[in-house]
Amino acid sequence: MSDQAIRDYVEANRERFVEELKEFLRIPSVSTDPVNAGEVRRCAEWLASHLRGIGLETVEVHATPGHPIVYAEYMGAVGKPTLLLYGHYDVQPPDPLELWLTPPFEPDVRDNKIFARGATDDKGQLFAHIKGIETLLALTGELPVNIKLLIEGEEEVGSKNLDAWIEANKERLASEAVIISDSPMFAPGLPSITYGLRGLAYLEMTVRGPGHDLHSGLYGGGVPNPINELGRIIAKLHDEDGRIAVPGFYDAVRELESDEREAFARLPFTEEGFIAETGVVGLTGETGFTTLERIWARPTLDFNGIWGGFTGAGAKTVLPSTASAKFSCRLVADQNPDKIAALVRDYVRSIAPEYVEISVELHHGGSPVITERDSRAVQAALRALKKSWDVDPVFVRGGGSIPVVATFSEVLGVPTVLVGFGLDDDRLHSPNEKFNLENFYAGITTSAFLWNELV
Amino acid sequence: MSDQAIRDYVEANRERFVEELKEFLRIPSVSTDPVNAGEVRRCAEWLASHLRGIGLETVEVHATPGHPIVYAEYMGAVGKPTLLLYGHYDVQPPDPLELWLTPPFEPDVRDNKIFARGATDDKGQLFAHIKGIETLLALTGELPVNIKLLIEGEEEVGSKNLDAWIEANKERLASEAVIISDSPMFAPGLPSITYGLRGLAYLEMTVRGPGHDLHSGLYGGGVPNPINELGRIIAKLHDEDGRIAVPGFYDAVRELESDEREAFARLPFTEEGFIAETGVVGLTGETGFTTLERIWARPTLDFNGIWGGFTGAGAKTVLPSTASAKFSCRLVADQNPDKIAALVRDYVRSIAPEYVEISVELHHGGSPVITERDSRAVQAALRALKKSWDVDPVFVRGGGSIPVVATFSEVLGVPTVLVGFGLDDDRLHSPNEKFNLENFYAGITTSAFLWNELV
Repeated sequence: MSDQAIRDYVEANRERFVEELKEFLRIPSVSTDPVNAGEVRRCAEWLASHLRGIGLETVEVHATPGHPIVYAEYMGAVGKPTLLLYGHYDVQPPDPLELWLTPPFEPDVRDNKIFARGATDDKGQLFAHIKGIETLLALTGELPVNIKLLIEGEEEVGSKNLDAWIEANKERLASEAVIISDSPMFAPGLPSITYGLRGLAYLEMTVRGPGHDLHSGLYGGGVPNPINELGRIIAKLHDEDGRIAVPGFYDAVRELESDEREAFARLPFTEEGFIAETGVVGLTGETGFTTLERIWARPTLDFNGIWGGFTGAGAKTVLPSTASAKFSCRLVADQNPDKIAALVRDYVRSIAPEYVEISVELHHGGSPVITERDSRAVQAALRALKKSWDVDPVFVRGGGSIPVVATFSEVLGVPTVLVGFGLDDDRLHSPNEKFNLENFYAGITTSAFLWNELV
Repeated sequence: MSDQAIRDYVEANRERFVEELKEFLRIPSVSTDPVNAGEVRRCAEWLASHLRGIGLETVEVHATPGHPIVYAEYMGAVGKPTLLLYGHYDVQPPDPLELWLTPPFEPDVRDNKIFARGATDDKGQLFAHIKGIETLLALTGELPVNIKLLIEGEEEVGSKNLDAWIEANKERLASEAVIISDSPMFAPGLPSITYGLRGLAYLEMTVRGPGHDLHSGLYGGGVPNPINELGRIIAKLHDEDGRIAVPGFYDAVRELESDEREAFARLPFTEEGFIAETGVVGLTGETGFTTLERIWARPTLDFNGIWGGFTGAGAKTVLPSTASAKFSCRLVADQNPDKIAALVRDYVRSIAPEYVEISVELHHGGSPVITERDSRAVQAALRALKKSWDVDPVFVRGGGSIPVVATFSEVLGVPTVLVGFGLDDDRLHSPNEKFNLENFYAGITTSAFLWNELV
């Protein structure tokens, strides 16, 4: 089957694909509100029925303690590789409704974009893959590789039943790599492969000075002040170069390779644009790294919250008993969240003076992940994107975490390739969410090309 | 008139004095609740009537926008010094009522102590002076010095109308010194003169990084984190010796004299007791000073409150836009709160990095005060206490502020002598407030001796 046949099929069926996507988008599969469980289930059933309709024979809707998981598989490519496609059919709540130009669950096409809740996150991107698979099945009656589809209904509520389901089905989910399209491209018209994500170690500490709040006049100067002490601890967590001062913190960090740094440097990114986007007065970070390197490929230690003493309006001369802070380390391969949490905790304890009590606890952690750029799946995605967009794709990383990616890595032992078709202005989670139809069509051909490339 | 005549009169009238104090204590002059204004006014009228009854001819009840001020004066000692006695007739709310062994406004004598709201703060201590004045008037028909009595009804609600009244009446309030009995003695049986109080400069600062809260994964490492930065600023406010690092901060500090340090060192004070009282794990403070020196005679910079980012239960990976803190300097003579606030503000701005915005504002300030230990009023109080208690009085300072003392110093230009008859276990502001009757009687003789000593 020629690439042109794929292009022609997608071209010929554009209108029907959009009408089907509208059907998918009309179902208000908002997963946050338990009273909406019926609509979420209806969406899962619609999706299962649609997957059967394109020719997949094994399609199952699995109940969970929350919303159902839709699982499908094509295992007819005997002796060929097996891939796993992950997506989610649930959507964010549409509030505030009054800000939508057209109703969130009445998809509307304007200016070659489709507007609806879930248009880009993730129904539209997921549906591009479903239509890509349909394209191959329609043209050849078969798929060139084995594909397993895992589509959950709780991504917007923390995927709380997904890990257990993956754990329980890990033999069945065996595959060479996972493909996910649930992210934006780096820039419009610039196909992007995200090959690394940062992990997380989230901690909280409390410094205790006096046994109870004291009058700052009667006692101030003679007893430890937990806020003053917490400030000193915070200050000692970084050195003058913006590096984290915890001994051993960087031991497992995989340093950036020169070609990665060069690739990042070529991206259409400016510090001026980043400053405007974040609203900061100026930038700072670890000496010796660019902003993209700092947010994608270097670990951090950021405070997320702090509290203690009197925080109301006006003035109260209290010398507080305790001061607390939440803080978290973003981690990069091959840092381990538990090890990092232990290093941080030990360091904080070591620098705290003996005249205060300090507690440090780990809230939760998540592993960083990196997918080798020379792996088969990444190279196949590169070629598929190039064919479909006629532009050289770029390699990017993500500064945040996608927990399911760490789960695929840890439970299934497989790498994930993140190939997003969204754009930064898609307004996911906001009113007037949209998906550019050109990206939808290019996503479909990318998907069809990708499976062929993975043979 | 002999000292013995004074002792005999007080001895002979003890029961009546206690009965009269009970009358005073029965009036629930709780100043916090506006619905109680009638009772507060009734108390002011009762007090005015009582002052007339002991022989004072000029007794006035002055309306204010809040509760009345009772003013009285004896100006019959022509050519003699004039003193000002300050006290307050309002009391704290009695809550929680269920913890009182006997009702707060039904004074009860048990174990030679009188239990009632206001027993020690300040009705009992004030009434000791009134009975001291009565003693002299009863024995001689006159007073040896001129005495002005300024008794307010809003001390427990911040004396909000007092400063304006003092300002408006400053010629009339002209005097050599102010006497206040509204504080505890350093230890039971140990008469104490408080000759210094610390002042205050209360500030607040906010550090702004991003223009809005950011996702700590997507942006962390590339933008300034206001909590991290606030911590570094906090850490730079003190040096390794616990001294405040603000340039010029100590320039106006009056250093402790060797006899003061010796006097403090002789007081019945132990660090073990202080640790038990405050519940701290250990003590800290400015190197080279004892705990009492640190809390009485050295300036401080203590954080009173801090907040920013996510402070709820669990974890949220936010990189906050701002972090704020309230902090205050306790000041000692001759530091000026406005000058100190300006020094601190300038220093904080100078150490803040250029990639964040910082605001520093002064909430309010109060001047430190010191009364010369060799002044006539202090020396007279020393002799009166010695006569009355038969124990050498001690010199102490207070770490907190008493705003009215600063007002007397700044508006009237007169020093204040604080001669308290209370005890640390008097439970002022708490259920079962009490005043030891032996202290009441000794307070009365102290007052009578004092006016004689001030001639």
